[in-house]
Formats: sequence, C-alpha cells, structure tokens
Amino acid sequence: MALLVQKFGGTSVGDPDRIRGVADHVARCRRRGDQVVLVISAMGKETDELLRLAVDVSKTRPGREMDMLITGGERKACALVAMALNDLGVPAASFTGSQAGFITDATHMNAKILEVKPDRIREAVDQGIVPVVGGAQGVSIDRDITFLGRGGSDTTAVALAHALGADACELYTDVSGVFTTDPRVVSEARKMLTVSFDELLEMTATGCPKPAMRSVELARNYDVKLHVRSAFTWEPGTWVTKEDPAMEHAIVSAVTHDMGDAKLTVSGVPDRPGIAARIFRRLADHDINVDMIVQNVSAAGVTDISFTLPADQLATGIAVVDELRGEIGATGVTSDPNIARVSIVGAGMKSNPGVAATMFETLSAAGINIEMIQTSAIRLTCVVREDQAERAVQVLHQAFELHKG
Amino acid sequence: MALLVQKFGGTSVGDPDRIRGVADHVARCRRRGDQVVLVISAMGKETDELLRLAVDVSKTRPGREMDMLITGGERKACALVAMALNDLGVPAASFTGSQAGFITDATHMNAKILEVKPDRIREAVDQGIVPVVGGAQGVSIDRDITFLGRGGSDTTAVALAHALGADACELYTDVSGVFTTDPRVVSEARKMLTVSFDELLEMTATGCPKPAMRSVELARNYDVKLHVRSAFTWEPGTWVTKEDPAMEHAIVSAVTHDMGDAKLTVSGVPDRPGIAARIFRRLADHDINVDMIVQNVSAAGVTDISFTLPADQLATGIAVVDELRGEIGATGVTSDPNIARVSIVGAGMKSNPGVAATMFETLSAAGINIEMIQTSAIRLTCVVREDQAERAVQVLHQAFELHKG
Repeated sequence: MALLVQKFGGTSVGDPDRIRGVADHVARCRRRGDQVVLVISAMGKETDELLRLAVDVSKTRPGREMDMLITGGERKACALVAMALNDLGVPAASFTGSQAGFITDATHMNAKILEVKPDRIREAVDQGIVPVVGGAQGVSIDRDITFLGRGGSDTTAVALAHALGADACELYTDVSGVFTTDPRVVSEARKMLTVSFDELLEMTATGCPKPAMRSVELARNYDVKLHVRSAFTWEPGTWVTKEDPAMEHAIVSAVTHDMGDAKLTVSGVPDRPGIAARIFRRLADHDINVDMIVQNVSAAGVTDISFTLPADQLATGIAVVDELRGEIGATGVTSDPNIARVSIVGAGMKSNPGVAATMFETLSAAGINIEMIQTSAIRLTCVVREDQAERAVQVLHQAFELHKG
Repeated sequence: MALLVQKFGGTSVGDPDRIRGVADHVARCRRRGDQVVLVISAMGKETDELLRLAVDVSKTRPGREMDMLITGGERKACALVAMALNDLGVPAASFTGSQAGFITDATHMNAKILEVKPDRIREAVDQGIVPVVGGAQGVSIDRDITFLGRGGSDTTAVALAHALGADACELYTDVSGVFTTDPRVVSEARKMLTVSFDELLEMTATGCPKPAMRSVELARNYDVKLHVRSAFTWEPGTWVTKEDPAMEHAIVSAVTHDMGDAKLTVSGVPDRPGIAARIFRRLADHDINVDMIVQNVSAAGVTDISFTLPADQLATGIAVVDELRGEIGATGVTSDPNIARVSIVGAGMKSNPGVAATMFETLSAAGINIEMIQTSAIRLTCVVREDQAERAVQVLHQAFELHKG
C-alpha cells in the first residue's frame, strides 16, 4: 500500500467528463490499495479568464486582491473533484491551500512556501478520506490568501508529498511524460522512461514546458520521487529520480528549444571593472529575467555585451539600458526579438568532450548560424534565428540518435 | 462621520462597469466623510452557473463541497471590487467570510451564524482601509467553509453592521426600495419612505422578493437600521425601522402576491385529536415548508384539511400524504398547483376591524373567488386562482388607496 500525491493539471479537469475521469482513476488506485492525496489546478483556461476579468475591471490590480481572485479557480475545481469522488462512493473532502497548511511569505502573485503543516490532510488520510487540495495557494504570515504563481500546483504537490512522506508524487498532465524533444517538432521524439533531476531542471529552464521548474528544484532538494504522466492515456510516464542507472550510457538525453526570448546588445561599452555589474544590477532592479550573457573580447578598450531576456520584457529592457547608456559611456543599443535558444541536455556530457563540437558541426552542416553560446556542466545552448530553430532541433535529435533510446 | 455597512447584490456587481460604479459610489461616501464596510454578492448569475456546473459534474453533491464551490462566487466579486477601489486611490482589502470572523454551524448550504468576530474588519476600518467582505459565507466550528444560503449576503451585512455597531446597514439592489406592491403589476405602486420591521417581514413572507426575510428578522432582533436602496439610480430608498412615526396613519401599507405555492387537500379525515399533528409532523420530517393551513368544520365526524406548500415540493408532499392516507383513514388527496397568495400588510390593521371586510368585498366585486384565508395581526392573505392574482393586487392597491401615500 503506497501513499501517492497525485496532481492534476488544468486540462485534466477541464470539463465535467474529465473531472469524472479523474475520480474514476482515483477510485481505481484506492481499489488497488493505495492511499491518495489529490492536488488540483484550476479548470482549463479558468486562470487566464480570471486574469482577463481583472484586467477588464482594474488598472492597478493589487497583488493581494489578485491572489484572492485567482486562487478561486483551484478551489472551484477541488470542490467539483471531491463531489465526483463522492458519487463513486469514495469519501473525499476539498481543502484550500490555507486549510491544507500551506504557510507562505507575503509575496503576492508569486508566494514562496515557508512551511507545510498538513495536519488536516494527514487526519483525512487516516480516516480513509481522499483530501483534494487546491493547488498553487496558501496563507501568508499576515493571514492573507496567497498564490504561488503559474505552475504552482506542481510545487504544491511536491511540497505536500515531502511533508506527508509520500511514496511518490505523480504529476498528471496533458503530455504522457518527458520527451527527448518536442514531439510536435520531431515525430521520432521518444518518451524517456527516466530522467535525472538535474537534466530535467536544465530542460525546463530551456524550453521543456512541463513540469514547472520550481517543483523540480523542490523535488530534487527533498528527494521526492516524481512521476510525470498522462491524465488522458493513463499509461506510465517518466520517472524523475536522483540516480538514474541508465545515465552512464546516454551522453545527450534531450534537445529543447525556446522561442520566447529576445536579444539585447549594448555596444561600445568601456572595458572597465564594474560596468557589467551596473547594467545587470539595474536590470535586476526592474525584475528583468536575464538568461544568457556574452561579452566579446575587448578591442581598443571597448567591448559589446549581449544578453537574452524574455521577449515580453524587451521594451522595459531597452528603456533601462538606454537610460544607462550615458552613465556608462556606451555607444549603442540594438535589439533582436527573432531569436531562439536551442539546447542539448545530458548528464553524460560532462565527461564527453566531443559533444560541443558535434553540436556546432551539425548546425553548421544544416546551414544554421550560431549567434551566442552558453554552457553548463550538463547543457549546451546556442542562440539561432527563430525561423531556423525547429530545423536545428530536428538535426540535433538525429545527430545524437535520441530516437534510438 | 458615519460608519456604514453597504451590501451590493449580484446585479449591482454584474460586470466590470457596474463594479467600477460601486467603487465610484464608495469613493464618494468616503469623500463625504463616511467610513464604509462593503459586503458583496456573487456577480450576476454566477451562483446559478456554479450550481449548474455542480449538477453537470455530480449526482450526490455533498453540502460541504457545494459550499466550497459556491462561496467562490462572492470571493471573486470581492477581490474585483477591492481592485476597482484601489484604482480610485481608496485603500481596500477583500476578506472571505472566514477572514471577516463569521463563525457558523455546520449546516452546509444553509449555515446559521453563531458568532461574528470582526477583529480584522475593525482593524482595517481603523487604518482607513475599506474592507470588502464576501457575502453569505463563514467558517464552521469544524473549520470548514460554509454558505449561508441564497440571499445570505443580506444576512452577512446585517450581522456585520450589528457586530461593528454601524450607524446603518444599506442594502443596495436592483430595485429602488420597498414598494406598496410589485410595480410590474401596478404602475401606480409607490416607493415607501419607511416601513416597519414587522411589516417588511410579513411582506417578504408573502411575496416581496427583497430583502431576504432572514436578514430582516436579524435586523429587527438587533435593531440594526436598514436602508433598502438602488445601486442603479443611487437615490434614497426605503428605511426599515422599529418605530415608524407615519404608521398611525396607514392602515394598509402594501399588497403582495406570490405565485410559487400549490395547494394540497386531504379529504374525509376522521375528526379525531392528533390526526393533524401526524400529517404535519410527517411533512416536517420531509422538510416540506407548509404555509397556510385550513381545516373545515367537521361534518359527520370527518373533515377536510387543506394547506399550501411551495410548488416545487408538491410532488413530495403528495407522496407523503398518500402514504399517510391509510394510516389516518382519509378518503382522498387532491392537489392544485395553480393558486396564488395575495396579501395585504399593515401595522395599522390590528386596530381597524373593517379591513378584512374591505378586502373580501373588493375581491368579490372584481369577480375573484377566495379559496383560503389566513390572518395575522398585521397581515391578511387570500388564496385565489393564479390567473386572477394580478387583477386582485390591482384592485386591492386601488381600494386601500396605496398610490396616495
């Protein structure tokens, strides 16, 4: 008998039929003898609709009120799932994040979990009741309702699995697991049976949409066994674990891509200590999420600094850097929204020096120009033209023989 | 400077424009120097939509989960109103029923308030913040979320006004006050400047749709000054008070009607002690809401008992009485869904013996047959044919000269 925390994403509870499907699945797990704790996201596009409504009503949208508004979505889905379970004779009770014991800081719209006190959840499990917990929410130390942010339900599930000492945390979603690359781009993309936390973290950081990166970090830190799987086919998905025995063989495990970034270049920057620090401090002060940073070799005492940032922050980024230009004596600022990041990820890369060369040769042979390069111990990212990104993914998936498993 | 509790109904916050309208009004009240505490209902038809969704998903719909689901509607509206206030520079913060200190019993879907501990609301008011409280909700002694039932926002507002010692409780709605009769039926219907608690109670019990009867009872018990008024025209509405100086003059204050009832007759009932008790105990056991009861004079040791009940409970009522028929030795059960109750209400009636005669004569002159009669100290109700109800209201409004004020 295992204790399982099962999280269901928005599309998995998108309509009454899907909600009943989730209830059926949970009833089956119970018949098999497992104890189940559910974490539920808002139905379908409900979070988007609530955000749109807020934009219709208000210009200021204070965070505290946004959190009160948005967390209602998960709460509604929870109550409906608990009803559907009850219909099947499975005792169930919904809990808000606050009732489930999620204590957070007061950073509205993006609250951090400080502590989980799952007394009521444990009590319910002990009484044979399936607790159905609202995802992505908690209560702040000021007793206000908080929202953990988009993708926060994954984080709720992992934190709860840890707090309860669950045997596994199953993230049910609309994909059937973690793939070697986006199956929409490469038809031979293969579902991975296992992936390591570190690999999955690099993948989610570079374009793999699920699960939410933050939940993977948390699962790694607390060693929570994650299982990413489908709420549509119910087949086994991908296990995420600390130690992957198959890892020695795979040099490169996956190819990811991300079209959502833009590039900003500050040119003619005096090559003096502290200049880069001033640029990136100022950007950080404006909450701009800089990813790759490349500084060219200095020529005649001046250099160029390029960096990537989310495309929707580009306008702010340009304004910030333009303002700084005079202060630091730079000569120009140019931007490019039409870039993509293409990455290869693999725990085996660190001990295989030829991987980078193979990546560059493969892209070159396909006529794809590399504009920026960034490396980590288990990842290699190239910035290419946006319209060449899918081709880059296809040739890399082929070159590293990822379809062969 | 007055402390006002202002409750806004569903249509008053039905869309973004209306929500901004409410915020404008509150900002005006604040500029005038008043302190305001808001109680907000769910937007427009949201509660109906949530109920429909629950019916789509589940057959059993446990009360605890229904309450979790439905109270989300008020919560959403609250957050949006708080945002709109913030846009106008008015500091505001939304509170769930639980956060506002509403402790209730655990009767889900129809919880009763046990206690209001409005510490956080008082704190907010003291800090110059407008608290925006979710209507019709609280937290049970079992720490579960509870719903006070339809119309529960009025009750929330009255209870909060009492707990805060507010100067008045303003119920903003889509009508501009309490009328001498339904203005859709009688075009000369007149808005009453004042009405007594007792009169308003009798009116809401016999067809006047607003405010919710339960809130009027509570306001009477705690002597909370009620002001029923419009969220559309913002004009002064009707004050509901204990003592109405104008009352000495008005014999009849209002005419109400209610088409929602049906009539059930048990005939050939042996005229023995305890028979009626058995019938109505059994009906009460099935939660059937009996209103008028008439027992005919006994003839040959048998009698007929007729009573009215909500039309949507008629089928259950027939089944219950049919089951009892053998036990009590009654000969027949007949039912009639096409009845209406027409009532005249007035605190001056008790000392004016001619009122009943005038009512009967007026109906008779209009060719309207009276099927049942019920009286209270300040009300007189006749059951008539449903298709004659509006005509009855018109002639009675005329006969008692209610258009003259």
